[in-house]
Amino acid sequence: MKVQPVRGMRDFYPEDMAFRNWLFERWRRASRRAGFVEVDGPELEPLELYTEKSGPEIAEQLYWLEDKSRRRLALRPEFTPTLARMIAARQAALPEPIRWFNISRCFRYERTQKGRLREFFQWNVDLVGIAGEIADAECISLAVDAMKEVGLGPEDVQVRINDRRLLAALVRHLGIAEDRVPQVFGILDKRDKVPAEALAGLLAEAGLEAQQRQGLERILAWQHLEDIDARELATPEVHAAVEAIHRLFALLADYGIAEWCRFDIGIVRGLAYYTGPVWEVHDCKGELRAIFGGGRYDRLLGDTGGKAMPACGFGGSDVILGILLGERGLRAEPETSTEYFVASASEASLPQVLQVVRHLRARNRSTQFDLKSGNLKRQMKKAADAGARFVVIVTEEFARSRRVTLRDMSSGDQRDVGLEELGA
Amino acid sequence: MKVQPVRGMRDFYPEDMAFRNWLFERWRRASRRAGFVEVDGPELEPLELYTEKSGPEIAEQLYWLEDKSRRRLALRPEFTPTLARMIAARQAALPEPIRWFNISRCFRYERTQKGRLREFFQWNVDLVGIAGEIADAECISLAVDAMKEVGLGPEDVQVRINDRRLLAALVRHLGIAEDRVPQVFGILDKRDKVPAEALAGLLAEAGLEAQQRQGLERILAWQHLEDIDARELATPEVHAAVEAIHRLFALLADYGIAEWCRFDIGIVRGLAYYTGPVWEVHDCKGELRAIFGGGRYDRLLGDTGGKAMPACGFGGSDVILGILLGERGLRAEPETSTEYFVASASEASLPQVLQVVRHLRARNRSTQFDLKSGNLKRQMKKAADAGARFVVIVTEEFARSRRVTLRDMSSGDQRDVGLEELGA
Repeated sequence: MKVQPVRGMRDFYPEDMAFRNWLFERWRRASRRAGFVEVDGPELEPLELYTEKSGPEIAEQLYWLEDKSRRRLALRPEFTPTLARMIAARQAALPEPIRWFNISRCFRYERTQKGRLREFFQWNVDLVGIAGEIADAECISLAVDAMKEVGLGPEDVQVRINDRRLLAALVRHLGIAEDRVPQVFGILDKRDKVPAEALAGLLAEAGLEAQQRQGLERILAWQHLEDIDARELATPEVHAAVEAIHRLFALLADYGIAEWCRFDIGIVRGLAYYTGPVWEVHDCKGELRAIFGGGRYDRLLGDTGGKAMPACGFGGSDVILGILLGERGLRAEPETSTEYFVASASEASLPQVLQVVRHLRARNRSTQFDLKSGNLKRQMKKAADAGARFVVIVTEEFARSRRVTLRDMSSGDQRDVGLEELGA
Repeated sequence: MKVQPVRGMRDFYPEDMAFRNWLFERWRRASRRAGFVEVDGPELEPLELYTEKSGPEIAEQLYWLEDKSRRRLALRPEFTPTLARMIAARQAALPEPIRWFNISRCFRYERTQKGRLREFFQWNVDLVGIAGEIADAECISLAVDAMKEVGLGPEDVQVRINDRRLLAALVRHLGIAEDRVPQVFGILDKRDKVPAEALAGLLAEAGLEAQQRQGLERILAWQHLEDIDARELATPEVHAAVEAIHRLFALLADYGIAEWCRFDIGIVRGLAYYTGPVWEVHDCKGELRAIFGGGRYDRLLGDTGGKAMPACGFGGSDVILGILLGERGLRAEPETSTEYFVASASEASLPQVLQVVRHLRARNRSTQFDLKSGNLKRQMKKAADAGARFVVIVTEEFARSRRVTLRDMSSGDQRDVGLEELGA
C-alpha cells in the first residue's frame, strides 16, 4: 500500500520544518513586542460559524463533515470567527483592549496554484475595543515590523491601504443600489485575479449599467488619494471617508513607516465582514498574491453573539511569504540536529559512551552516538552525516581517567578534556 | 447568533496558551538534545492510511469526510502513519537512523472524559533504522528526560515496560490460536478501563476456554519478570523474549534511569502495529490514563509502501500531562504580555509617545500604550491592567530633552532617563 498525501497539503521534512519554525518564531517575537498575547481555538468549528459571517467565497471553500449526531463541523478556513466566538463567551472578563495573536493551521478547498494551498498556516493578529485609526495603524505597524524581522524592506513589499467606507460611498454615488454593494465588492476583489473583460462581464451580470461600469473603471484607475474627483469629494460620505484615510496615513508617518505604505483604491478584501480600513501587503513587483491582508470589522463581534465592539486585525499565510523569501534567498538554513557525536574507540564501551552522552544531554547539548556500535571509522562517518560540530572519542582509559578526546569537526583540531569540562 | 465550540475541543485563552507553549518548548528542548529533528505532515490524510494499519479501535474513532471527488479524508488520530508515509516517499535519500519528532494536533471521535478529549496535541518521537534494544532505550530515556524537564520525578511517574513478543508467546503457549492474538491483545489493553468481570466476558466471547482465561489471569497477576513460570520459560519463544527484556533493562540502567522503569506484563498498547517492546508512562498513584505510550513497530514501514525498516517510538498527549502537572502545582504561570507601558503626561503628545514605543519595540521590548489617549491616571490603570513592569512617562519636555520618566511598577521607584538608555 503506497499512500499519497492529499493534494494541496504539505509534508514538512526537517528542512521544511526548520523554515516553518524560523518563520513562526519571528511572527511570535514581533507580536509579543507589540504587546499581543497568543491564543488558539479548535480546528473544527460548527459550520454555521463560517457560512453566516465569512461570506460566500469562504463558505464554498469549506472542508466540512457531519458527525454522528448530524452536526455539521467545518475545518477552520480562518481564525477570526473563532476569535469572535471566544470573545463573546468571556467578554465581561476580558480587559480591553484585547490584543491577541494566533498562528493557525487553516484549510480551504479551492483550486491549488502558486501560493495557494488547501492547508496552510495563518498568522492572525486582532486588536479589539478601539474604534480610532490608531488601532488600524498599530496593526499595520506590526505587519511591517514582521516584514523587517524576516529581512524584507520597503523596496520589497508595500502595504496597500483603502477604506471600504470610501469605496461604498463612491459606489453608491454612482447610483448603484445599497443591496448590490457586497456583490460589487466581491467582484472588485477579483480584479487582480481575472482579466479586465471578465471583470466587466461580471459587473454587467450583477446588473450594473454601462455608465456605472465606466464610473467604476475611472475610480479604479486612481493612483493617489488626491485623484478623487472634486464633485465626489463634496459628498459628505466620501469626504468623511477621505478624512479618515488621511488620519490613518498621518499616524503611519508617526510610526515611521510612511515609506512602506500607500493608498490603493483597488483594495477590497474578499471577506464579507470588513467595515472600514482594509489593506494588503504585496510584493513590490506585483508577482504574487497578497502576503498579509486585514482590516476593520466593527460589526462581527456583535453579530457572533457578543456585545458590539470595534475591532481590527490581519492575517497572513506562510505560503506566499515562503515563496517570496525563497526567491530573495532569505529562507533560513535548516537547523543542525547534532552538536556532539560521542564515539567509542572500542566496541565494548557502550556504558562509558552512555555516561558521556548523559553528561552532555544534561547540559542541554544536542548529542547522538552510533546506535549500531560500529568501528571508529564508521562512527566518524555517522558523525559527519549527522552534521555534528564536535566528536567526543571515548577510549578504555575513560573508566579510570574520566577524560575524553574532543575533536572539532570543522577545524579538525583534537584535544584531551576532562568530562566536567565537556559541554560547559 | 451565539455559537458553542464543538464538544471535546478546547479554546486556548492566553493563560491556556501560555501553558501549551511552555510544555511544547520543553518537549522540543528534550527532543533536540537527544538529537531528534522536528517534522510534520498534513492533518488531513487519506482515510485508508488509518483503517488499514492503526487497528479497529482507532478506525472507529476517526473524523472523516468525503471530498468533491469522493475521496475519503480523515483528520489524523495519530502521527505515526504519516511518518511511515513520509519515510516511504523518500527512503533512499534519508540518512539512517532517522530521528524525528513532531508535535501534532490529533483528533479522535470518542466519548469525552477526564484526560480524554476529541482534539488534543501529541508529542511524537520516532527512531527508525535500528533493530536493537538500544533504540527502545533511547526513546524511553527521552520520555524520562521530558518528565524531568517539566519537574516530575520517579516518585511521580513510572515507565511500565512489556514486550508483545513475550505476551504473544505466552498467549500461544496457552493454546490460543495465532489468529486470535490481535483480538486478545485488544481486550487485554482495556484491562485498566473495564471491570474484571467485563474483561472475562469479552475473553469468553472471543472464544477463550475457561482454562485459557484462568491462565491469562495468572499471567497478568505477575509482578516481576522473575515470576514467570519455569515451564513457560523453557519455551524457546518465551525464553528469547525474556532475554530481550533483560537486555533492555540493562541498557536502561546504563542510561541511569532504572529507578524510573519497571516491568509490567499488563502493558499491551491499543494500536495494531506494535511488534516488540511496548511501554507506557503512568502516574505512580495510578489515577490517570497513560501519559506517554510507545513501542517497536518493525513492520509498519514495509506495509506502508516503503522497504521494511525496524522502528520504534512513542507519543504522549498534552491533556493528561496537563492534568497531572496541574494537580502537582507544576503548571506554568501565564506570560506577562507587557514589559513597558508608555504613558503621556499631556494628551497632545501621541507622536512623542509613538517615538518612545518605536524605540522600545526596536529593542525587542514588549511595549504598549493607551490607544484611547486617556488622562495620566487612566493610563496608569491601563498599565497595571496590562501587567506592565515599567511605565515610561513622556512629557512635553521630551521633544527638547529626549528624556523620560521611568517608573518601576513593583517598587514604585521613579527616575529620569535618556531615550538611548531606555530598554538597553
